[in-house]
Amino acid sequence: MSHPPVYERVALIGLGLIAGSMALAMKRAGLAGEIVGTARTAATRGVALKRGLCDRVCETAAEAVEDADLVVLCVPVGAMETIAIEIAPHLAPGATVTDVGSVKRAVIDAVAPHMPDGIHFIPGHPLAGTEQSGPEAGFAELFENRFTLLIDDGADPDAIARLARLWTEMGARVEVMDADHHDLVLAVTSHTPHLIAYTMVGVADDLRRVTDSEVIKYSAAGFRDFTRIAASDPTMWRDVFLTNKDATLEILGRFTEELFALQRAIRTGDGEMLHDYFTRTRAIRRGIIDAGQDTATPDFGRGGGKR
Amino acid sequence: MSHPPVYERVALIGLGLIAGSMALAMKRAGLAGEIVGTARTAATRGVALKRGLCDRVCETAAEAVEDADLVVLCVPVGAMETIAIEIAPHLAPGATVTDVGSVKRAVIDAVAPHMPDGIHFIPGHPLAGTEQSGPEAGFAELFENRFTLLIDDGADPDAIARLARLWTEMGARVEVMDADHHDLVLAVTSHTPHLIAYTMVGVADDLRRVTDSEVIKYSAAGFRDFTRIAASDPTMWRDVFLTNKDATLEILGRFTEELFALQRAIRTGDGEMLHDYFTRTRAIRRGIIDAGQDTATPDFGRGGGKR
Ligand SMILES: NC(=O)c1ccc[n+]([C@@H]2O[C@H](COP(=O)([O-])OP(=O)(O)OC[C@H]3O[C@@H](n4cnc5c(N)ncnc54)[C@H](OP(=O)(O)O)[C@@H]3O)[C@@H](O)[C@H]2O)c1
Ligand SMILES: NC(=O)c1ccc[n+]([C@@H]2O[C@H](COP(=O)([O-])OP(=O)(O)OC[C@H]3O[C@@H](n4cnc5c(N)ncnc54)[C@H](OP(=O)(O)O)[C@@H]3O)[C@@H](O)[C@H]2O)c1
Repeated sequence: MSHPPVYERVALIGLGLIAGSMALAMKRAGLAGEIVGTARTAATRGVALKRGLCDRVCETAAEAVEDADLVVLCVPVGAMETIAIEIAPHLAPGATVTDVGSVKRAVIDAVAPHMPDGIHFIPGHPLAGTEQSGPEAGFAELFENRFTLLIDDGADPDAIARLARLWTEMGARVEVMDADHHDLVLAVTSHTPHLIAYTMVGVADDLRRVTDSEVIKYSAAGFRDFTRIAASDPTMWRDVFLTNKDATLEILGRFTEELFALQRAIRTGDGEMLHDYFTRTRAIRRGIIDAGQDTATPDFGRGGGKR
Repeated sequence: MSHPPVYERVALIGLGLIAGSMALAMKRAGLAGEIVGTARTAATRGVALKRGLCDRVCETAAEAVEDADLVVLCVPVGAMETIAIEIAPHLAPGATVTDVGSVKRAVIDAVAPHMPDGIHFIPGHPLAGTEQSGPEAGFAELFENRFTLLIDDGADPDAIARLARLWTEMGARVEVMDADHHDLVLAVTSHTPHLIAYTMVGVADDLRRVTDSEVIKYSAAGFRDFTRIAASDPTMWRDVFLTNKDATLEILGRFTEELFALQRAIRTGDGEMLHDYFTRTRAIRRGIIDAGQDTATPDFGRGGGKR
């Protein structure tokens, strides 16, 4: 490579979609001297080796972090504390520990108390993902042009800048923010929408009069998108809702209020209210396209068939 | 063409996404001897002529239907009755009148009473669309491998078979069903999901603490999909909710019940309930992919960038 790696040895704890994508993105750009990985099951570790996600796998997280200058926790949020306790005595002095969990306050509460002095703990969250998971799911392009949010919880500025450089070279746009603000923004843009999609798909699944096969067969735009969202990993999402409880419940409360107002407009036949509401929501879509976070290409639901 | 057209003269009333797509699909396969169109505004009629959607445009629906053996009502559901009254005296004896409205019972109530004897009225609904609208939005492939539902409201079987042939040759899979059943299935697969998406985007737009620009900037999977759905045409959707009121309110009631159960599980920390729920909803996604209504390709939100 034309430039030296950003970290000499990176340890990936958990080898699913996010860790796999990081591994491939780091390899592509020569950002890590060596990538060591570990996962709970031998099956996942085997696939990771076979796909070349890691140069080396270890059976335990404790072994994997030895002499690593960067440790990335890529497990569900609910599993972070156990791992933090396991790795703490084995961390190299001066190492940076980060994570990719979808919730940030709970991860700080779970991990920070266990970090030895001299370790730079910098929580992180790449706003990138798909509905797929596991060691086969990752790809090097996942983070391109997506934001990665880093939390400044009092870590050394140089350590933060180095981690930000890693993400930037993997293609991400990095911003630093506060953990509670992160959790509220994500409750709006990701967590509550996922809960709603899961709920709607659950309702459809319950309806016996509208048989399953019809709901599936005639699945139109709208529901089809919801089913994709609701196909995401159950463990990851259980942990998200359990650990971002307050913000999710707050946004859900507002959602229910608004839904009741629209429901009332339908019941009373208030077409003007509905039309005004639906006109207002169009503008925000325009903003997302302008911000480069999606394209204006119409989606008619056939993946590669997008025009 | 190697086969004669299915209809000698087709009149399209309304020239937006659906009519435009029908025009292009009919032209591609030589299914119509002549396509005549009309729309409310001169601007739309002009674009339709320029794009070659019609061979001829008329200023009024009354003129457009003269001597047509197929008339297709492609306007918002709330506009159907006025058009039915306008065209009724001008319909050619033995002509077929159909529509593409997203609700079926209300269209039957609005249109059927005005149809003269000898006219075959066959309500229809192509389960295909995008979030875009207007005369520029249509494309010939829209209906390919999508279902079109025709309603048997007592019309002549030969007339139904002929209309089914038109849709089949435009690429659609045709099924015949009952109007009320249609409205309930669509309330589940399309109408309620759209209302929910509109609501969630409205909530995000309301939140002043989480500024608009952040919601847009950090828009992740989930919310991003909702904003696409919530960018659909306000008039069309207002009419859908006003005219499929009962089924939508019924499904919304069930949705709220389920949402409250999940909300309670979050509040009480019932991870097992959440995990079980999220596992169950995965299966329905598998069904949709197997039914060919979407692909398993992971969506990471960049249109053409889908892998
Ligand atoms: N998916 C997304 O869209 C997305 C986006 C941004 C952030 N995140 C966050 O990234 C993290 C990882 O998500 P992912 O999508 O990469 O998940 P994933 O594909 O399901 O992979 C999870 C990995 O963690 C391991 N693991 C699971 N439970 C464990 C436990 N109790 N102890 C030790 N290891 C365990 C798994 O090992 P085995 O395979 O051996 O079981 C697997 O290697 C989560 O915190 C999630 O919130 C996800
Ligand atoms: N979009 C979808 O995803 C979808 C899917 C299946 C079925 N449908 C149904 O298809 C129908 C048309 O939808 P679309 O998406 O094609 O709509 P669109 O692109 O907005 O086009 C609507 C057309 O109807 C005309 N129109 C609107 N209001 C009218 C009125 N009051 N009187 C006379 N003409 C009027 C418009 O004329 P101007 O342009 O001159 O105003 C325009 O040509 C609706 O009933 C809808 O429920 C839509």
